[in-house]
Amino acid sequence: MENTALIPLQYALDTFYFLVCGALVMWMAAGFAMLEAGLVRAKNTTEILTKNVALYAVACVMYMLIGYHIMYSSPEGGILPSIGFLLGDEHAVDVVAAGGEDAPYYSARADFFFQVVFVATAMSIVSGAVAERMKLWTFLAFAVVMTGFIYPVEGYWKWGSGFLNAAGFLDYAGSGVVHMTGAAAALAGVLLLGPRKGKYGANGQVNAIPGANLPLATLGTFILWMGWFGFNGGSQLKTSTIEDASAVANVFVNTNMAAAGGLIAALIVARILFGKADLTMALNGALAGLVAITAEPLTPSAIQATLIGGVGGVLVVFSILGLDKLKIDDPVGAISVHGVVGIWGLLAVCLTNADASIGAQLLGIGCIFAWVFVASLIVWGILKLVVGLRVSEEEEYEGVDIAECGMEAYPEFTKQ
Amino acid sequence: MENTALIPLQYALDTFYFLVCGALVMWMAAGFAMLEAGLVRAKNTTEILTKNVALYAVACVMYMLIGYHIMYSSPEGGILPSIGFLLGDEHAVDVVAAGGEDAPYYSARADFFFQVVFVATAMSIVSGAVAERMKLWTFLAFAVVMTGFIYPVEGYWKWGSGFLNAAGFLDYAGSGVVHMTGAAAALAGVLLLGPRKGKYGANGQVNAIPGANLPLATLGTFILWMGWFGFNGGSQLKTSTIEDASAVANVFVNTNMAAAGGLIAALIVARILFGKADLTMALNGALAGLVAITAEPLTPSAIQATLIGGVGGVLVVFSILGLDKLKIDDPVGAISVHGVVGIWGLLAVCLTNADASIGAQLLGIGCIFAWVFVASLIVWGILKLVVGLRVSEEEEYEGVDIAECGMEAYPEFTKQ
Amino acid sequence: MENTALIPLQYALDTFYFLVCGALVMWMAAGFAMLEAGLVRAKNTTEILTKNVALYAVACVMYMLIGYHIMYSSPEGGILPSIGFLLGDEHAVDVVAAGGEDAPYYSARADFFFQVVFVATAMSIVSGAVAERMKLWTFLAFAVVMTGFIYPVEGYWKWGSGFLNAAGFLDYAGSGVVHMTGAAAALAGVLLLGPRKGKYGANGQVNAIPGANLPLATLGTFILWMGWFGFNGGSQLKTSTIEDASAVANVFVNTNMAAAGGLIAALIVARILFGKADLTMALNGALAGLVAITAEPLTPSAIQATLIGGVGGVLVVFSILGLDKLKIDDPVGAISVHGVVGIWGLLAVCLTNADASIGAQLLGIGCIFAWVFVASLIVWGILKLVVGLRVSEEEEYEGVDIAECGMEAYPEFTKQ
Repeated sequence: MENTALIPLQYALDTFYFLVCGALVMWMAAGFAMLEAGLVRAKNTTEILTKNVALYAVACVMYMLIGYHIMYSSPEGGILPSIGFLLGDEHAVDVVAAGGEDAPYYSARADFFFQVVFVATAMSIVSGAVAERMKLWTFLAFAVVMTGFIYPVEGYWKWGSGFLNAAGFLDYAGSGVVHMTGAAAALAGVLLLGPRKGKYGANGQVNAIPGANLPLATLGTFILWMGWFGFNGGSQLKTSTIEDASAVANVFVNTNMAAAGGLIAALIVARILFGKADLTMALNGALAGLVAITAEPLTPSAIQATLIGGVGGVLVVFSILGLDKLKIDDPVGAISVHGVVGIWGLLAVCLTNADASIGAQLLGIGCIFAWVFVASLIVWGILKLVVGLRVSEEEEYEGVDIAECGMEAYPEFTKQ
Repeated sequence: MENTALIPLQYALDTFYFLVCGALVMWMAAGFAMLEAGLVRAKNTTEILTKNVALYAVACVMYMLIGYHIMYSSPEGGILPSIGFLLGDEHAVDVVAAGGEDAPYYSARADFFFQVVFVATAMSIVSGAVAERMKLWTFLAFAVVMTGFIYPVEGYWKWGSGFLNAAGFLDYAGSGVVHMTGAAAALAGVLLLGPRKGKYGANGQVNAIPGANLPLATLGTFILWMGWFGFNGGSQLKTSTIEDASAVANVFVNTNMAAAGGLIAALIVARILFGKADLTMALNGALAGLVAITAEPLTPSAIQATLIGGVGGVLVVFSILGLDKLKIDDPVGAISVHGVVGIWGLLAVCLTNADASIGAQLLGIGCIFAWVFVASLIVWGILKLVVGLRVSEEEEYEGVDIAECGMEAYPEFTKQ
Repeated sequence: MENTALIPLQYALDTFYFLVCGALVMWMAAGFAMLEAGLVRAKNTTEILTKNVALYAVACVMYMLIGYHIMYSSPEGGILPSIGFLLGDEHAVDVVAAGGEDAPYYSARADFFFQVVFVATAMSIVSGAVAERMKLWTFLAFAVVMTGFIYPVEGYWKWGSGFLNAAGFLDYAGSGVVHMTGAAAALAGVLLLGPRKGKYGANGQVNAIPGANLPLATLGTFILWMGWFGFNGGSQLKTSTIEDASAVANVFVNTNMAAAGGLIAALIVARILFGKADLTMALNGALAGLVAITAEPLTPSAIQATLIGGVGGVLVVFSILGLDKLKIDDPVGAISVHGVVGIWGLLAVCLTNADASIGAQLLGIGCIFAWVFVASLIVWGILKLVVGLRVSEEEEYEGVDIAECGMEAYPEFTKQ
C-alpha cells in the first residue's frame, strides 16, 4: 500500500512538522519566563528572568549530554535506566526510512529537538513555585540533576518504552511525564524552602502579594497557549498520512477548546467567590485547561475537550486557595496548574479513550509522583545542607535582584 | 492528471499548512491584547487584558457551539442562515479525499481551527474601541452574540457561499468579513457608550490621552504583523500544488509590503502634520496597510501592494483625526484601522483583480456594514437597558481595574 | 531517480518551509525592538521603538526596489553589481520546476520573502549601537542606503554568486553577510557619533547606564532565539529530500545548543568577573552563541555546536568590556555580539567543515568588513555634514523621545 517513492517526502514533511512543533515548544520557555516575571514583585524580576533563561540552557545541555540517552536508549519495559552519554548511537545517525520497519520515518535530530524542549518545560514549572526566595545557583544546580536524570528516568518509563508504557499507562503529551513531574519537583522544593516572608500572617490570614506586571503575565499565558499547539500537536509524532494529519488537527482543536473552557470556568468561579473578574485566575484557568487536555487531546470531541478543560479551570481555583490554607506558598500557582490539574488530566483519559484503565493511570500517577517527589526531596535536601536553599532575610526583604544579579529589572519605575 | 497516490501527502501538507496558519492567527489575539494594553492608561490595563483573554475563549466556545454551523452549513446563495449546533455533521467527520469531488482535501478540523481564530480577531477589534469605560461583563455578553451569531451570518453570506458570494463580492481574507465587521460592531458600541471623560473639552478641543506602555503597543503590532501571514497566507486554503504554493508566497510578500507601505506613509504624513515621528501613528499605519491588502493580497504586484498599503496608512491618520472631530472616541484607533481602511481594501480589489466589480464590492460593503451595525446597535441597546454599558463616573475616574478586576496591572509603578 | 510526479509537492513543501522560516526571521525584528527597548533608558524608548519599526519597513521597500536585484541578478563571480529595479525579471516570474535544471524548485516570491527579512536583521543590529543619541531621520536615511545598496553588494559577493563565493568563502546563514555587516555599519556610525553623555568619566571610569526594562530585553532575546531557527534553518534553502530534511534538523539542534552554550559560558564568566549572575551578559551570551554558529550550523556535532557557542559567550563578555575601555559606546553590545563574535563564527567554520579554508574565510571577513565599514563611514560622514548625526545636548539630556517623537514610552511610570 505504501508507495516507497513517497518515503522521502513523508520523511521531509514529518521532520519539518517536528521542527515547527519543537520551535513552538521552545517558545513556551519564553512564556514561562514572562508569566513568572509578571507575577513576582519588581524587586525579584531580574532574578526570575535569569533563572528562566539559564534553566533552558542547562536543560538543553544536560539532556544532550545524558538525559536523551537515558530516556530513549534504556531497556524496553524496564525500571532501571541505562546510563549513557550524548545523543545515543542509535539515535545520532539518521536512519533512512528504507532501513527497516522500526526505522523512524523522520530525522532523529528532529526528534531530539522536540524532546529537549519538553525537558525545559518541566523545569520551567519549578522556577515559578520557588520564586522570590530561592538562591539562584542552588536552583541551577537542581536543574542540572532534574534535566539530566530525574526527568529522563520517568520519561523513559513512559515514552522510552519502560514499564509504565508496558503497563498501559496513557499520557499522550505529558500531563504526567512533563507537567505533574515539574509540579512534584516544585512541591518538594517549596516544602523545604518555606513560604515567602509576609505571605502568611501569625493568625492564619493569607496576604495577597500582587504581581508587578500583569501585561507580562498575560503575554506569557498567550505564549504558552500558542506553544501548546506544538506541545500537544507534535506529540502525534507524525503527520504525513490522512489519519495522522486528521489526528493532529483534532489535537489542535481540542487543545484550544480546553484552554478556552478552563479560562471561562476559572473566570466564572472566581467571580462567584470573589465578586470580581480575576485576571490571574483566568490566566491560570487557561493554563489548567491546557494541562488537563494534554494527557489525551486526541479522542475527546471538541465539546468534551472544552469540559475537560473547564473542570481543570474549576480545580485550579480551589487548589490555589487550598494550598494557601496549607501554607504551601507557590507565587505563580504552578503546583496547582501543573500538579493537581495534571492528575485530573491523567484520570480524564479514561473518560474518552477506551484503551485507558483507571488502574494503569493511577499506577502511572503514583510511580511518577513518588519518584520525582522523593528524588527531588533528596536533591533539594542535599543542596540545603551543602549550599543552602534560601537567600538571607535581608536579601529577601530588599529583593533578590540586587543580591543575586546585581541589577534591578525596572530601575526607573520603582524608585520610591 | 492528479496522481491519487499523492492525495494523502497533499492532504497532510494542506492540513499542516492550515494548522500553522491558524496558530499564527491565534497569536493575533495576543497582539490585540498587547496593543490595547499598551495604548490605554495604567489604571485600565488589567481590565482590557481580561477582556482580551476572555473574548478569545468566548469566541472559541460560541463558534464551536453554533457559529461554525451557521457560517458553513447554511443554504447556498442564501441570506437567511440555518441554525444548528456544534461543528456540523458534514464537517465533524473528516472526509477522506478519495470520497468524491467535493470532499475537502484537508482535515475538516483544521478548517474549523483556522476559522475559529478569525472570529476572535473580529471580536478583538471591538475591545479596543470601547476601552477604558465599558463594563466588562456587558462586553462579554456582547461577545457571545457577536461570535455566535452576528459574525457567522455575514461570514456565511461571503465565505459560506451565501448571496454575497453569488453576487461576485470579493474578499480574499476578510477586509470586510472580519475587519470592517469588527469596526462596525465597535462603532455601534461607541456611539451608545459615548467618549471617555475628559477626552473632549467643552469648547471643542481634543485632549490626548497617552497610552501607558508603548513597548507593549509596539510588540502587539509586531505580533499582529507576524500573525497576518497566517491570516492572509492561510486564506488560499491550500498549498500543495505549484499554483497554490506560489500564490501563498505571493500573499506573504504582498502582506509584508503593504504593512511596510502603510507604516512609512503614516510616519511621513504624521511628520508633516505634527512635526514629529509619531510612533502610534506609525503602528496604526502598519496595521492599516495590513487591513488594506487583506481583501486582495494575491493579484497585486509587490509595488502595487506597497502602494495599496500606503494609501491605507494615509487614510488612517486622517480618519483618526476626523473621528476625533466627530467626538467618536476610539482609544486605539480601531474603527479607523479596521473600518475605514477595510472599506478602502475592499474597493482596492478592483484595481488589480479583473474579476472584481465595483458594484459587487459596494453591495458587499453595504450589506455587511448594515447588518453588523444594526444588529450590534440592537444588542448593545438591549444591554444598555438591561445591565448598562458604562461603568460609573467614579469607577472610570479611579480606573476600571479596581472596580471590575480588583487588581492593578502595575501596582508598584504607579503609586504616586 | 527523481520522480517527476513528486515535483509539485516538493515545490509546495519547500515553498511553505521557506515561508515559515521567513516569518520566523521577520519575528526577529520584534526581538531586536524589544531587546533594544529594554536596554535603553525610559526616556529614549519611544524613539528606539520607532527606529525599529521604521527600519524594518524601509528595509522591505528598498530591498524590493533595488536591493534584491543587485544581490541576485549581478554577474557571476564578479565584484561590481549590476543595478536594476524591482524583483528582477528572472525572479519575478515563478519558474515551474519542469522548466530546466537551473529552475528553482520553490516559489521565487518565497525566496524574496526569506531574503528581505535578512536585510532587516542586518539593519536592526545598527539601531542598538547608535541608540540614545542619534537623530531619528538621519538613522532612517542611512537605512535607505544600507538596505538598498551596501548590504546587497556584499550579499551578492557571497550569496549572489559573486567573487567571494567563487573564492570558497563559506557563510551558511550569515555570521558575516548579515551579522558582521550590521556590526561594521554600526561601528562606523558609533565612531563618528561618539559616546553618550556621562558614559565615560573624565578620569577613565566607565559608568553603567542600566536598561529600563529587563523583562523586555529578555523577551527580545527569546524572540531572537526562536526566530533564529528560521534564520539558520531556512538557509538550507530546501527541505524536501531526506538529506535536506536531516540537514535542517541538524541545523535546528545546533542553533539551539550554541545559544545554550553561549548563555552558560557568559553567565559563568560574568560570575567570575563580577560575582553576580549578570542577566544582560547571559542574554548577550545566548545571542553570541547564535551568531557564532550561524556561519556553519550544519557540520558540527551537537557538542561541538555547544562549544562554538560557548566560545562566543566568553568572547562577548570580554569584547563588551574591551570596547568600553576604548570608549566605543554601544548601549546594547551589538558590535560585540554581531561583529566580534561574527568573526569568530566565520573562523570556526574551519573547525568542522573540511571544505573551508582559513584563507578564504579571512578574505571574506576582510572584504566584507572593509566594504561595509568604509561605505558606511562615507554615508554617515555625508549625513553628519548635511543634516547632523546627533541630537542636541539638551535633547539627549531630556531624552530623545520628546524631541523626536513627541511622546513618552511610559508616561505614568517615570514622572518623578
